[in-house]
Amino acid sequence: MTEAGRGTTRGLFSRRAFTTAATAAAFVPLVGAGQANAAPSDKVTGKPDKGDVRRMTLYAEKLPNNLLGYGLEPGKATIPGPLIEMVEGETLEIELVNNTDITVSLHVHGVDYEITSDGTRMSNSVVEPGGRRTYVWRTHAPGRRPGGTIEPGSAGYWHYHDHVVGTDHGTGGISRGLYGALVVRRKGDILPDKQFVVFFNDMTVNNAKAGEAPHFMAKIGERVEFIVVTHGNFFHTWHLHGHRWADNRTGLLDNPQDPSRIIDTKITGPAESFGFQVIAGERVGPGAWMYHCHVQSHSDMGMAGVFMVADENGNVPGHDMGGMSMGTGSGMSTMPH
Amino acid sequence: MTEAGRGTTRGLFSRRAFTTAATAAAFVPLVGAGQANAAPSDKVTGKPDKGDVRRMTLYAEKLPNNLLGYGLEPGKATIPGPLIEMVEGETLEIELVNNTDITVSLHVHGVDYEITSDGTRMSNSVVEPGGRRTYVWRTHAPGRRPGGTIEPGSAGYWHYHDHVVGTDHGTGGISRGLYGALVVRRKGDILPDKQFVVFFNDMTVNNAKAGEAPHFMAKIGERVEFIVVTHGNFFHTWHLHGHRWADNRTGLLDNPQDPSRIIDTKITGPAESFGFQVIAGERVGPGAWMYHCHVQSHSDMGMAGVFMVADENGNVPGHDMGGMSMGTGSGMSTMPH
Amino acid sequence: MTEAGRGTTRGLFSRRAFTTAATAAAFVPLVGAGQANAAPSDKVTGKPDKGDVRRMTLYAEKLPNNLLGYGLEPGKATIPGPLIEMVEGETLEIELVNNTDITVSLHVHGVDYEITSDGTRMSNSVVEPGGRRTYVWRTHAPGRRPGGTIEPGSAGYWHYHDHVVGTDHGTGGISRGLYGALVVRRKGDILPDKQFVVFFNDMTVNNAKAGEAPHFMAKIGERVEFIVVTHGNFFHTWHLHGHRWADNRTGLLDNPQDPSRIIDTKITGPAESFGFQVIAGERVGPGAWMYHCHVQSHSDMGMAGVFMVADENGNVPGHDMGGMSMGTGSGMSTMPH
Ligand SMILES: [Cu+2]
Ligand SMILES: [Cu+2]
Ligand SMILES: [Cu+2]
Repeated sequence: MTEAGRGTTRGLFSRRAFTTAATAAAFVPLVGAGQANAAPSDKVTGKPDKGDVRRMTLYAEKLPNNLLGYGLEPGKATIPGPLIEMVEGETLEIELVNNTDITVSLHVHGVDYEITSDGTRMSNSVVEPGGRRTYVWRTHAPGRRPGGTIEPGSAGYWHYHDHVVGTDHGTGGISRGLYGALVVRRKGDILPDKQFVVFFNDMTVNNAKAGEAPHFMAKIGERVEFIVVTHGNFFHTWHLHGHRWADNRTGLLDNPQDPSRIIDTKITGPAESFGFQVIAGERVGPGAWMYHCHVQSHSDMGMAGVFMVADENGNVPGHDMGGMSMGTGSGMSTMPH
Repeated sequence: MTEAGRGTTRGLFSRRAFTTAATAAAFVPLVGAGQANAAPSDKVTGKPDKGDVRRMTLYAEKLPNNLLGYGLEPGKATIPGPLIEMVEGETLEIELVNNTDITVSLHVHGVDYEITSDGTRMSNSVVEPGGRRTYVWRTHAPGRRPGGTIEPGSAGYWHYHDHVVGTDHGTGGISRGLYGALVVRRKGDILPDKQFVVFFNDMTVNNAKAGEAPHFMAKIGERVEFIVVTHGNFFHTWHLHGHRWADNRTGLLDNPQDPSRIIDTKITGPAESFGFQVIAGERVGPGAWMYHCHVQSHSDMGMAGVFMVADENGNVPGHDMGGMSMGTGSGMSTMPH
Repeated sequence: MTEAGRGTTRGLFSRRAFTTAATAAAFVPLVGAGQANAAPSDKVTGKPDKGDVRRMTLYAEKLPNNLLGYGLEPGKATIPGPLIEMVEGETLEIELVNNTDITVSLHVHGVDYEITSDGTRMSNSVVEPGGRRTYVWRTHAPGRRPGGTIEPGSAGYWHYHDHVVGTDHGTGGISRGLYGALVVRRKGDILPDKQFVVFFNDMTVNNAKAGEAPHFMAKIGERVEFIVVTHGNFFHTWHLHGHRWADNRTGLLDNPQDPSRIIDTKITGPAESFGFQVIAGERVGPGAWMYHCHVQSHSDMGMAGVFMVADENGNVPGHDMGGMSMGTGSGMSTMPH
């Protein structure tokens, strides 16, 4: 790449090390310890009985730059907050501890909760500074109602967020970082090797500064799950280079009759969420594959990152990012592995 | 709830009685008189023969505050206009009487109509002040074409609107209230117990003033149908607390292989329409469940209302709405029943 | 139609001849010579072996009014660029010749390409002025992976565009016209009789001036394929009068269990693409059927055209377009046929 080319690239992506960027999102796979390394064809092996109850504590905390975050331990809040996973049938009791000096709450999408766990001011299910409150999230498998109709299950790519900071819709809390992803699996759903969470929150990715959107790293052949959530005031079109998915519940086809559209770009608006799995580099090989919002002004303002797919030797062809490359003239660089 | 909390809630939702709010949309179930009380597992019992023709008259009328509306009788226009229902196979002949002093029209989505029923100036199918014109809407069941391909049926959550007031795209007519919902059922489709219609029309819900979006009331266990249509210039993300649906034709799963995403938030733009049914309070219990646009600035500006799900005794827990509650310290109030 | 009506219509659609408008998009059916006249029930008969390779040359060219375009021959660029078609299993090698004085590239959605064919500056796969570069697009049929999961095929309504002019996201190239549609068929997919390509590129249709959006002509009963792509910075809602389609991969139902929503309006954002087939005038007859963005301010600004469906004699009822009609007082005009 020419110097001029480098200069332009430098403007697009900052120099920070890729290895740290991948830790921008905190991953908390709660399903089972083995999950993170599950083989592509593995299934969820945990078989929670109906009514299985797990408990966790979530801390709402202040972060630098007027940001706020949820975390699993005091002083360890992140944006997005911890990725929470459930399997249909489980119940999760979350005690929210408010370590900030303003009222916060926890509102969740997709799962079953009584009005006392709504996280809204109207239902008075919020947490004063210094206080704590337990929110109960239940999930259920699909089934038939007595009348014969089908009740859908809770499985899906969902999310949680504050609903009270700033306005009664949580506009300030969301804007400042009080949000996280929730994945509810159906028994038998395929587990990923790696998971990456992207919140398009107004013009940011995960509240990162422009040009500092996270980069994600995988090795070729790994089953990678992307969880995409939008917040704020704008629509976006999520796009991933070189990979596609099905526009359905799982992002996967599990039978040949599935009529779902295969896509690589999806419009999405505030509080929508979806997820999908790809095999990193499948049929396209290793590479520095961009992901970005495809609204042109948004990507130009920095809503773009890189999905780094390394070959078996840890090399990632196809980028030369503002001097951080350790590679050769052919544009190869070496990732830590 | 504290006084401070009340104050905030008061800003969010106005004090008007909930009982009147539920009548904001005029419901005209034309399928059959028994429909409104159909049990969840009931089916459409009317069996219209191919070519069944029904007739109705629709009046375009002026309303206060420079609004316009469609109604079933002179002087009784509403915004939205009457909810019209058809069963696949039926034909509906609608005579539009123009009681306003400007040219209006009737344009419909989804059903079969000849160009003379297009409702556009280009096709000269508009109605001058004081005039009347009959529009013919036909519907059909799915079937196979001679070549073997499948022709989809007319069933869907559709809508109708003016296409001529203000501009040749009806921008003024739509803005001022000339719109309504149309549901076309397939024989065998499950009928709801109650129906609620929401038009996100620019920054309003059903052209109501900010903070006066309609509230909807149901009892726990009722099968409630929401019909959501967008108009104007903006996208919105419809969100309902505590309830979810399938992102497909009916909003319901009718076979376990249906790969549709289960959602509680959906992006939607002008002239899009969708509908779905939920069992009020299923797995979450009674409560004052918010519905709102999840674009933060829109909800903050008042694009929010409440889906009130009462328990068997008519009590709705989880709200304390600016003094209108008749309930106890536990946040319970009593709905008329 | 009255003079007043004419005047209004004149403002909506310009006088240019319809017959030339239909050639605004260049159609390059590469699948087989017989395709353009295929009967509705015909199937793709070409059976490309796995690895079938075709080659083509694409020229990036300057156009008047600061526009840019792709073309199949020097001096013959169009906006949109040539419609490219592939059948799953084929490989296409495209040599891009840069006849402009700025760096351009070719980035494609949906198909398989290595990072060296990404068309991004980061991967250094761009073409300097006067240069040429071969991009390789591969496609594949659906199948089962060794682990048993299903790999989706490449079939879909996709598109290609520049990714480097103006900004590293190709904002300038896209804005000025460097884009085109790509259709990948599955063996057995139904072929259309006619194809029309619509790019909603910011507030234009195919970069045409306001009021000069293309009109499309068909005869009643023809199987017409619409390919719709969005670019730029805004969302749009594509709407077609009098015709509907399924919101799935093909826009068609191919089995009765398909739960897809039947729609006539669809929200779409930058870089999204979809397509569908309709039988021109099916159940609604011949007519001048408008297509437009249903965002009211967008249609009012000219994002609207006409889908002209002629009867067996070539007459199109239902329009009287600013004097271009050759028809009778009944609003009939005669199309060349
Ligand atoms: Cu964006
Ligand atoms: Cu909104
Ligand atoms: Cu538009």
